[in-house]
Amino acid sequence: MNLQITQLNLPDRMIDLGVGQPDPSLLPLADLKQAAEHRLGHGDPSILQYGTEQGNGYFRDNLARFLSHGYRSTVDPEHLFITAGATSGIDLICACLTNPGDTVFVEEPTYFLALRLFADRRLNVVGLPTDENGLDMDALEESVAETQPAFVYIVPTFHNPSGATLTATRRERLGRLSEKFKFYVIADEVYHLLSYIDEPPLPMANFNRSGKVISVGSFAKILAPGLRLGWIQAAPELIRQLTASALLKSGGGMNPFTSAIVQSMIELGSQQRHLERLIAVYSQRATNLVTALRDFLPDSVVFEEPRGGFFLWMQLPEGMNAQTLRKAAKTQWVNFQPGNNFSATGELINFIRLCFVYYSSEKLREGIKRLGQVMLQSRKESSK
Amino acid sequence: MNLQITQLNLPDRMIDLGVGQPDPSLLPLADLKQAAEHRLGHGDPSILQYGTEQGNGYFRDNLARFLSHGYRSTVDPEHLFITAGATSGIDLICACLTNPGDTVFVEEPTYFLALRLFADRRLNVVGLPTDENGLDMDALEESVAETQPAFVYIVPTFHNPSGATLTATRRERLGRLSEKFKFYVIADEVYHLLSYIDEPPLPMANFNRSGKVISVGSFAKILAPGLRLGWIQAAPELIRQLTASALLKSGGGMNPFTSAIVQSMIELGSQQRHLERLIAVYSQRATNLVTALRDFLPDSVVFEEPRGGFFLWMQLPEGMNAQTLRKAAKTQWVNFQPGNNFSATGELINFIRLCFVYYSSEKLREGIKRLGQVMLQSRKESSK
Repeated sequence: MNLQITQLNLPDRMIDLGVGQPDPSLLPLADLKQAAEHRLGHGDPSILQYGTEQGNGYFRDNLARFLSHGYRSTVDPEHLFITAGATSGIDLICACLTNPGDTVFVEEPTYFLALRLFADRRLNVVGLPTDENGLDMDALEESVAETQPAFVYIVPTFHNPSGATLTATRRERLGRLSEKFKFYVIADEVYHLLSYIDEPPLPMANFNRSGKVISVGSFAKILAPGLRLGWIQAAPELIRQLTASALLKSGGGMNPFTSAIVQSMIELGSQQRHLERLIAVYSQRATNLVTALRDFLPDSVVFEEPRGGFFLWMQLPEGMNAQTLRKAAKTQWVNFQPGNNFSATGELINFIRLCFVYYSSEKLREGIKRLGQVMLQSRKESSK
Repeated sequence: MNLQITQLNLPDRMIDLGVGQPDPSLLPLADLKQAAEHRLGHGDPSILQYGTEQGNGYFRDNLARFLSHGYRSTVDPEHLFITAGATSGIDLICACLTNPGDTVFVEEPTYFLALRLFADRRLNVVGLPTDENGLDMDALEESVAETQPAFVYIVPTFHNPSGATLTATRRERLGRLSEKFKFYVIADEVYHLLSYIDEPPLPMANFNRSGKVISVGSFAKILAPGLRLGWIQAAPELIRQLTASALLKSGGGMNPFTSAIVQSMIELGSQQRHLERLIAVYSQRATNLVTALRDFLPDSVVFEEPRGGFFLWMQLPEGMNAQTLRKAAKTQWVNFQPGNNFSATGELINFIRLCFVYYSSEKLREGIKRLGQVMLQSRKESSK
């Protein structure tokens, strides 16, 4: 009998810097216990009934206030739709707004499981170039002028895997292109609130002149993945398309019980306090990761210091292959995500993604020390 | 600002016997509060992490024991996959096992939102005849010999809407046909545990010689719809197909947090006690509904006394149209589901579905009294 609880099941000795999940020791069990007592003690059983398709109005009201504070721009609760996490939200958008065979554009690199999600929906995925400021807008304009995509999927802030943030100017232009060429934008903004140095540009919902910009958020990165709770911020007309689906009509709102408990976390202030704690811990880990990289890795690796989110994206020394390196690394009990996993065409084999939130600073440093030794060894062997 | 919590929003005066939801006053808020305290006080934050795709092993172990008792046949926890409710389970099955354009067979009548779910997945839905013992197996054999369907969707026990239960002999034959003609069976068994008179035949998982029988269950009918928690019982090879989908790989298990809380309800015995309470209350309401129908409705209506589940299916007096009757009924503040909603081809306009679990016996009686008056009035008018 397999009594596993979590998705991840790593050997104790392994330091897997490829894992893109929160540190279990930071998951706020006590806060959620308090929130559950608060909400379930209120005596309103309607939170246990089939929920309204858009999501509990009181919860959306609280979420809107929480987001307005974090986003530094007003969020209207009528523009929020409650999901069972970012993935479920994106899958529902695909169900409602695409047909099998449709072309969609993604960034190169992009979130690797989004690629698989779109493949499961039988969409034709095309990768577009990016740089340190996010998606290349000239390339996008050229491509949408040639082929109208069903949507463009981007991670505008603290990108997974690249860490890059789309500039305000490019956001503005993306909004205008969406209007001119009539395509949807799915902005996966799950890292937006995890900002460690300075404020990122406003979320994509602020550049929604087309009415076709859909912002996807989640409690997975700021509270707990196991809740399966997130939101979509979009124009009410678009939300009506989502709530009209049979999936919503039959099951009702996507996560009413958990919504109600998280509502109490927002009301009691524990969600905001937890977010501030995460920012303090994660930003320190990002700094310590960078120090370890400078201490243990060859000078010829190229990376930007993380400004937020979960990840650091690194170009390996010229000619070094991430898949080959990974094989060697695993034998030394360290692991990472090779860059080609994030490519629509299997490119980027010279890059790797490192996550700095799952492990403590000590473990991160030990992992990078091991990685440095493996890289040194692999260069020696290749120069033989 | 729309502060609605529940999917349903009825005027106070309306008695809507079309509503297929539990009575809010029976939703066990206090039990869930106790279960949340029990589970969240255990100090294991791994229930908040991305969950294993198949669902928490400890929860599956408890669920298997609970089901083995209720089903009177052993359920193997390795044959269970945890879903976010029956609808999400059926939608995931469609995603993994069908292609747009595939033909699927359903019963005539069938659950109306399953029809819409299959339409959203662009499946070609064909209705097959049923009688008081469920799906007509001769008709099924003839149809599958002619066209191999992706799957056959049935509600074998205490059918929605008809209330009928598929006999053991027919279950056995369905299993054999699934083997011979190589089609999947989706058995929507969400009402199986709500048995009021005698034990129904064993669930469809006991007739799975083909390895293609998939049983779908849910906590919506036996605990609370707002939890969005259910399960699929199927062969491990089939479960592996579901867990390999990008939706599961990206989000992890479908509802880890709520699973963990419901695990405590099973461990503490409150799930079993709640089920027994529901059976006592609902069976009394079914009896009282039948009494009211005999007291207030013309003798020419035809129905079977409910043996379980949520619904009574009734044939109206000859020539009476359910849609026309419904318009008149609504003006007298009573409502129901017209039969054509449950037909793949819009037939069955001479039938209606009545739910006996949402309202108290007093309200049910008042609703049927109003319906009787409306029927009397409509017959007078049609005989003018």
